[in-house]
Amino acid sequence: MTLWGGRFSKKLDPQAWALNASLPFDKRLALQDVRGSVAWAKAIQQAGVLTQPECSQICAGLEAIRNEFEKQGFVFQESDEDIHTAVERRLVELIGPVGGKLHTGRSRNDQVATDFRLWMMEAIEDLSGAITSLQETLVGRAGSDMDVLLPGYTHLQRAQPILLSHWWLSHFWPLQRDLERFAQIRERTAILPLGSGALAGTSFQVDRLALAADLGFSLPSQNSLDAVSDRDFAAEFLFCSALTGVHLGKLAEQVILYCTAEFGFFELSDAFSTGSSLMPQKKNPDIFELTRGKTGALLGYLTGLMSTLKGLPSAYDKDLQEDKVPVFQAYDTLMAILPVIAGALKTLTLHPEKMGAAMDPAMLATDLADYLVGKGLPFRQAHILTGQAVQMAAQTGKHLSALTLAEFQSLDPLFDNNLYLVFEPQHSLGRRNVIGGTAPEAVRKQMQIAKEILLNAGRE
Amino acid sequence: MTLWGGRFSKKLDPQAWALNASLPFDKRLALQDVRGSVAWAKAIQQAGVLTQPECSQICAGLEAIRNEFEKQGFVFQESDEDIHTAVERRLVELIGPVGGKLHTGRSRNDQVATDFRLWMMEAIEDLSGAITSLQETLVGRAGSDMDVLLPGYTHLQRAQPILLSHWWLSHFWPLQRDLERFAQIRERTAILPLGSGALAGTSFQVDRLALAADLGFSLPSQNSLDAVSDRDFAAEFLFCSALTGVHLGKLAEQVILYCTAEFGFFELSDAFSTGSSLMPQKKNPDIFELTRGKTGALLGYLTGLMSTLKGLPSAYDKDLQEDKVPVFQAYDTLMAILPVIAGALKTLTLHPEKMGAAMDPAMLATDLADYLVGKGLPFRQAHILTGQAVQMAAQTGKHLSALTLAEFQSLDPLFDNNLYLVFEPQHSLGRRNVIGGTAPEAVRKQMQIAKEILLNAGRE
Amino acid sequence: MTLWGGRFSKKLDPQAWALNASLPFDKRLALQDVRGSVAWAKAIQQAGVLTQPECSQICAGLEAIRNEFEKQGFVFQESDEDIHTAVERRLVELIGPVGGKLHTGRSRNDQVATDFRLWMMEAIEDLSGAITSLQETLVGRAGSDMDVLLPGYTHLQRAQPILLSHWWLSHFWPLQRDLERFAQIRERTAILPLGSGALAGTSFQVDRLALAADLGFSLPSQNSLDAVSDRDFAAEFLFCSALTGVHLGKLAEQVILYCTAEFGFFELSDAFSTGSSLMPQKKNPDIFELTRGKTGALLGYLTGLMSTLKGLPSAYDKDLQEDKVPVFQAYDTLMAILPVIAGALKTLTLHPEKMGAAMDPAMLATDLADYLVGKGLPFRQAHILTGQAVQMAAQTGKHLSALTLAEFQSLDPLFDNNLYLVFEPQHSLGRRNVIGGTAPEAVRKQMQIAKEILLNAGRE
Amino acid sequence: MTLWGGRFSKKLDPQAWALNASLPFDKRLALQDVRGSVAWAKAIQQAGVLTQPECSQICAGLEAIRNEFEKQGFVFQESDEDIHTAVERRLVELIGPVGGKLHTGRSRNDQVATDFRLWMMEAIEDLSGAITSLQETLVGRAGSDMDVLLPGYTHLQRAQPILLSHWWLSHFWPLQRDLERFAQIRERTAILPLGSGALAGTSFQVDRLALAADLGFSLPSQNSLDAVSDRDFAAEFLFCSALTGVHLGKLAEQVILYCTAEFGFFELSDAFSTGSSLMPQKKNPDIFELTRGKTGALLGYLTGLMSTLKGLPSAYDKDLQEDKVPVFQAYDTLMAILPVIAGALKTLTLHPEKMGAAMDPAMLATDLADYLVGKGLPFRQAHILTGQAVQMAAQTGKHLSALTLAEFQSLDPLFDNNLYLVFEPQHSLGRRNVIGGTAPEAVRKQMQIAKEILLNAGRE
Repeated sequence: MTLWGGRFSKKLDPQAWALNASLPFDKRLALQDVRGSVAWAKAIQQAGVLTQPECSQICAGLEAIRNEFEKQGFVFQESDEDIHTAVERRLVELIGPVGGKLHTGRSRNDQVATDFRLWMMEAIEDLSGAITSLQETLVGRAGSDMDVLLPGYTHLQRAQPILLSHWWLSHFWPLQRDLERFAQIRERTAILPLGSGALAGTSFQVDRLALAADLGFSLPSQNSLDAVSDRDFAAEFLFCSALTGVHLGKLAEQVILYCTAEFGFFELSDAFSTGSSLMPQKKNPDIFELTRGKTGALLGYLTGLMSTLKGLPSAYDKDLQEDKVPVFQAYDTLMAILPVIAGALKTLTLHPEKMGAAMDPAMLATDLADYLVGKGLPFRQAHILTGQAVQMAAQTGKHLSALTLAEFQSLDPLFDNNLYLVFEPQHSLGRRNVIGGTAPEAVRKQMQIAKEILLNAGRE
Repeated sequence: MTLWGGRFSKKLDPQAWALNASLPFDKRLALQDVRGSVAWAKAIQQAGVLTQPECSQICAGLEAIRNEFEKQGFVFQESDEDIHTAVERRLVELIGPVGGKLHTGRSRNDQVATDFRLWMMEAIEDLSGAITSLQETLVGRAGSDMDVLLPGYTHLQRAQPILLSHWWLSHFWPLQRDLERFAQIRERTAILPLGSGALAGTSFQVDRLALAADLGFSLPSQNSLDAVSDRDFAAEFLFCSALTGVHLGKLAEQVILYCTAEFGFFELSDAFSTGSSLMPQKKNPDIFELTRGKTGALLGYLTGLMSTLKGLPSAYDKDLQEDKVPVFQAYDTLMAILPVIAGALKTLTLHPEKMGAAMDPAMLATDLADYLVGKGLPFRQAHILTGQAVQMAAQTGKHLSALTLAEFQSLDPLFDNNLYLVFEPQHSLGRRNVIGGTAPEAVRKQMQIAKEILLNAGRE
Repeated sequence: MTLWGGRFSKKLDPQAWALNASLPFDKRLALQDVRGSVAWAKAIQQAGVLTQPECSQICAGLEAIRNEFEKQGFVFQESDEDIHTAVERRLVELIGPVGGKLHTGRSRNDQVATDFRLWMMEAIEDLSGAITSLQETLVGRAGSDMDVLLPGYTHLQRAQPILLSHWWLSHFWPLQRDLERFAQIRERTAILPLGSGALAGTSFQVDRLALAADLGFSLPSQNSLDAVSDRDFAAEFLFCSALTGVHLGKLAEQVILYCTAEFGFFELSDAFSTGSSLMPQKKNPDIFELTRGKTGALLGYLTGLMSTLKGLPSAYDKDLQEDKVPVFQAYDTLMAILPVIAGALKTLTLHPEKMGAAMDPAMLATDLADYLVGKGLPFRQAHILTGQAVQMAAQTGKHLSALTLAEFQSLDPLFDNNLYLVFEPQHSLGRRNVIGGTAPEAVRKQMQIAKEILLNAGRE
Repeated sequence: MTLWGGRFSKKLDPQAWALNASLPFDKRLALQDVRGSVAWAKAIQQAGVLTQPECSQICAGLEAIRNEFEKQGFVFQESDEDIHTAVERRLVELIGPVGGKLHTGRSRNDQVATDFRLWMMEAIEDLSGAITSLQETLVGRAGSDMDVLLPGYTHLQRAQPILLSHWWLSHFWPLQRDLERFAQIRERTAILPLGSGALAGTSFQVDRLALAADLGFSLPSQNSLDAVSDRDFAAEFLFCSALTGVHLGKLAEQVILYCTAEFGFFELSDAFSTGSSLMPQKKNPDIFELTRGKTGALLGYLTGLMSTLKGLPSAYDKDLQEDKVPVFQAYDTLMAILPVIAGALKTLTLHPEKMGAAMDPAMLATDLADYLVGKGLPFRQAHILTGQAVQMAAQTGKHLSALTLAEFQSLDPLFDNNLYLVFEPQHSLGRRNVIGGTAPEAVRKQMQIAKEILLNAGRE
């Protein structure tokens, strides 16, 4: 059965059918389709299209179908073109021709947009939960790893000492922005298209404000042409997923690096590592590599849909059917990655001695320049002088802190014995006591703010 | 001059210099760099790094530089690696070595992120203004073209009659979502990175809350590592620009179609059309084709930056320098397109007779089915019957409305003479009187809401 | 069972397992994996690793497994991490511990690259066949629709008359370039990675030239590090698929336009059209819209993989596991689209009367300018004069050909009565008798060349 | 002046003009435009459109213009819409109205496609030269660094010992594939569109075979509709550029890693490093980070153009004007990167002692398993046993090679004293003596092949 065909004299070619059918992926919207249909039945009953008994019959039938879906008992048929057809086909099987009244004043164009938005509103909640769990892991580690020092890098070169907790928290904030974006997408998704008909608005006096409220939307859409063609929410979802992927990928890249023998700061639990079929010694951070690699796929989903949307001519074009697969793939990707990363981070072993060993005194060069600034030198000159000291140390094969006072003074007589105090990493950390800085006090405040955010997230 | 070099024994290779230098594009941040530097000077004076006279000297020097930029009198030198270097170089020229104190406690990492955010906050205001202007044009046309009927399309096939004003407004709402997104990006952009140093936070007691307020940011960043590496705002800007491009491209596609000889609904003013070097009769909608074509480029900028961000390892990596060119290109693209589209739409000539001629009676088939629903038939059967009538009309080469009552009744005796009333497009329109529907009353309400939105936008 | 684990003290976390496992998609390489394993067994027997009886045992076991795959009788187990593991697990079940000798000197890194290349070489043959079939359809239509005139468009504005056959053939050549590209990719894919081990080359004296020949590769790879990480062939496949998608999408866009009521040149068979759940009159070109829409997805697959490949650090990184899904999706997409388009084009009904009615005399304006050129006027002036004639016609509401001789002469006395000859479309066509031109003679020659290409394709 | 306008009653709106004008970027095609115009003048003289003196006049005028371009003496005017207009405008200035005969039978549609292809054929030669130079650098380093051992990585974990020369050469082969692809693109670019007119073929009897030969094309295009719309060559160029970018980015990623303090294998020359404005000790691999970062931009150019091409409706649409900027940007990007990388690699200092120190005995675990295979154990069991030895070593905090024979034998009595021989990296290398393997003999052969390829490249 199709929901059309009266005017057609030939059946669809089988290969064309296969190309056209969306059931293989849109059956994922089964529960949303039933839910939307129940609400629609009530709305058109209220509008006088259905009698109260008809409405009850239809709703009972739909409840039975929902039950079948939930118990995996629903049997799809080859002739089901899409989930909407399958539900209506089954409804008529269950309750007879009155089931054919359900689609009055409705089109698959507004129906599928409604189903998809319903699905996405739930999906965003799931995703947000998974992101929040990862944030909790990060804050948890920041709390338990307090006082561990880590070399901070820029350009992947040793830069300045930081607190490991500061590093953990540096991955909290991007996720917080992701959550904020997803929440804003959810709000824009909560605009009800149902009642827009195929393109021009339904021709029955449906109370769309009530319908929106019934289905958990905040408002009905304001323009039917826009309502059936708008896929901004899907594009936004894919963008935000891809950006979340970028954030996870950046975290993954750093974990992979810190798990190398060369850095050696982190060690993954065996429960979150894999081996090699050939090399018996290998312990690989596959799950972080997959996280990084899947960032590419997430970006591809976004590019794909945006390109599909580009240049479409009508209120509704069939091209829009291509909206669901990438969104489902993006959701599944993130839902697969997020808990695994959280699990792996929770069970990560630290090697603080390796972090300490990597704390090259040259990382305090900025503090040394600041020391000269304290003696009245403009920073620009202090920077040059300190650079020369670094060069001198490199040429003599010494650590910067191992240059003698005489050597320092050969560069500038301003140096005195106090200079050696700057080579204490804790001293450097302590000086960076501004909002967002790596000083222990500042990091503790930062952690407090993060915890409050999580607490509020839990309350919502 | 570079802002580094003390530890280096060789000058940068000239080709490497050219690859590395960002001045060719970041000089666009000149005014922002000066503004941020003035605020920084005051902040470090307050923190005790500069004396009051030093601070005044520096600020006066920076004001002089701002003046040079505004009057196009600033002379860049080959040795200026980037805009920050250029400004500091010039400052020292103007006020002597004390200028070398400005960079104390600051890094180009937090500086460039600050400049770029300052630029973007202004850019979003400009863009929002240009989008709002286009919205005003759309609402203006909706007002003046009220009562013109247009065939509505799905799948580019004639579907149902709509009001032209409804169509104009269908392009208002996507732009409204774009504005909402840009406003949200602006809020996320208004987080101050300055004071984050290179990665670990500045080592001087700078009041970052005051600094944020001074520069028009809402808050300082909470984590210095994140602050210097976060380019979410740039990615978001590119995404939102690309999505705006998709919306403009969809409008463009439809205008291009409606300007064809075959549709013939619209005619562009000569002031917004171009011709052919070979074919003297041609009048081409180039500006709408370029709008559609540039959607691709906008998507490319987004993809490019997202891919650049993917897998970065440190707090700051030089890869991030690639963030500015695509953002500038996206901004310039939209600012070039938006006013031209507005101008072209304002001066568009309508051919309502062509729209009327395209109003095939078969477009009322849904209303015919609804008519049968009114007689108690389930919609599904009404749909089938009507489809058969359409087929009968096609086979006999008649318009659907030209079938005789006998012919209709050969399909089902339910048909009676009243059926012919459905073939009046105005009747069809009037029935779609729900929120967002194409009924004149609904469209007038919609227009009212749109006007209020514009009014509020103007007030902000 | 995994192919590793000796050094691990914990089992992989179940969610990490699910993220890591590639069986859900790489089982598609089952037959290739068996084929590559048989060849490998022979190669290491020749290298002295296996005895002849061991080799025979292993090969017999593998043949049994191949049989199971072909008869859908192979039972995967939850513990099968990937297709390679599944095959080896089953082999040991079938023939005992000697099966554990198969993986000697081999790694999954070189194995999977080999399997994937084997798959792709076959896939390209399938795809090329499907593309060639579509080309045959196009040439077939060009042959049967000879002498039908079609308005040619640029900027979607009527430009010059062309032959419909010329239009059909305009879609032949892009596909021919696609075939050429796929053939070149196939050649680059036919480089054997097997024998590269995990990264450094196999440590047994395998004759890789013989192994390559045995498996149908042209040569072994020259560098083991490159061999295990090279995914150029996958990226190229995705690029070429996306470009093929662009070509099909362009064809689709034009068919969709020509099937509108407004153009009306084409009518799809009912067997290749679909309807609306709401609007009984609708007959939609869904399959062409899906073709156009899927171009976006194809581009997304390309972008995704390229972005995944970007910035990878090692010889083999697990990120590379993300290579297969997009390639399979691209292949499936094209294989689903191509035959349906061919079927739809074969059964397309033409409406030459609509094409004729669209042949506006202004489309001969270039010929009119050429006529003036024939009288000695520089083309630039002839173009201006003709443009003025077009404007005069538009202002007086006449067709260009309906201007009187006096009106023409008011623009320039050079015009004489012969000018009206140019308004015969056939005359215009006939003048474009250069290689690649739309003159009937030129199109017949073009068709001949196309047929020879197809003939040669058939012979290969 | 525009090349059209006769039929227009209003001038183009200034902002529309700015949006429409392509001169800012297509002036880069100036020399190609002149060259194509000279050939066209000769072709239409031969076709009888121009007399011999007219042709000579025009060619002389064009030569004068070429001269102006080459000496930077050409003055563009605000009214020059594009490079074609500028050249024709100047030609008429120089030689009078006869210049207006040049455009006879030609359209900007075929003209710009010709210019762009001419440019690209030259661009590919330049690029290929720059790539070949980098290959020479790689082969040069492979030659001079022979005998240096490097840890080989997979998953960024130490895997097996390799020769540094093998690693250098692993970056040779991807570039070789890039060259092959560029050469194939060049062949497909060498198809002449000129003579296709606006879309239907030129109406004058131009000998397109001769014209193709005159301009260095291999053949004329076979279908005029396809010829003016085909941008496959641009898309291919962008794809191949992006893939080259991926290869360079992978090299860059590895260099960045090997330049970290933690790996420490490489040290960049000061002439190819940059510093920090804040941290005096920093020496950053900016040029490799930029290389990696620009991979994103290159991918963006590709995505952008592909998306622009998607869904275009006509033979020529103005959207195609968007083809040039990304191609120019891609070319400029690669031409900026390639010589700098070559320079940086040539001047790179090695730290073989760091490479040696990183040669963990566990990297010989595969060889240890192979040793057990030599004793008759199936590899799978040998792998498990070796894995257990690795675990034992890890648990006791010893190197794998430091386990006592008794400890090994506690795992399996097959172990004997000879096992310790496997821990000699040179032994491991020597065993990988297959085509493409890392054994010194195999690498020398590989280098020989690479040198022959370069020799042949030089000869072409």
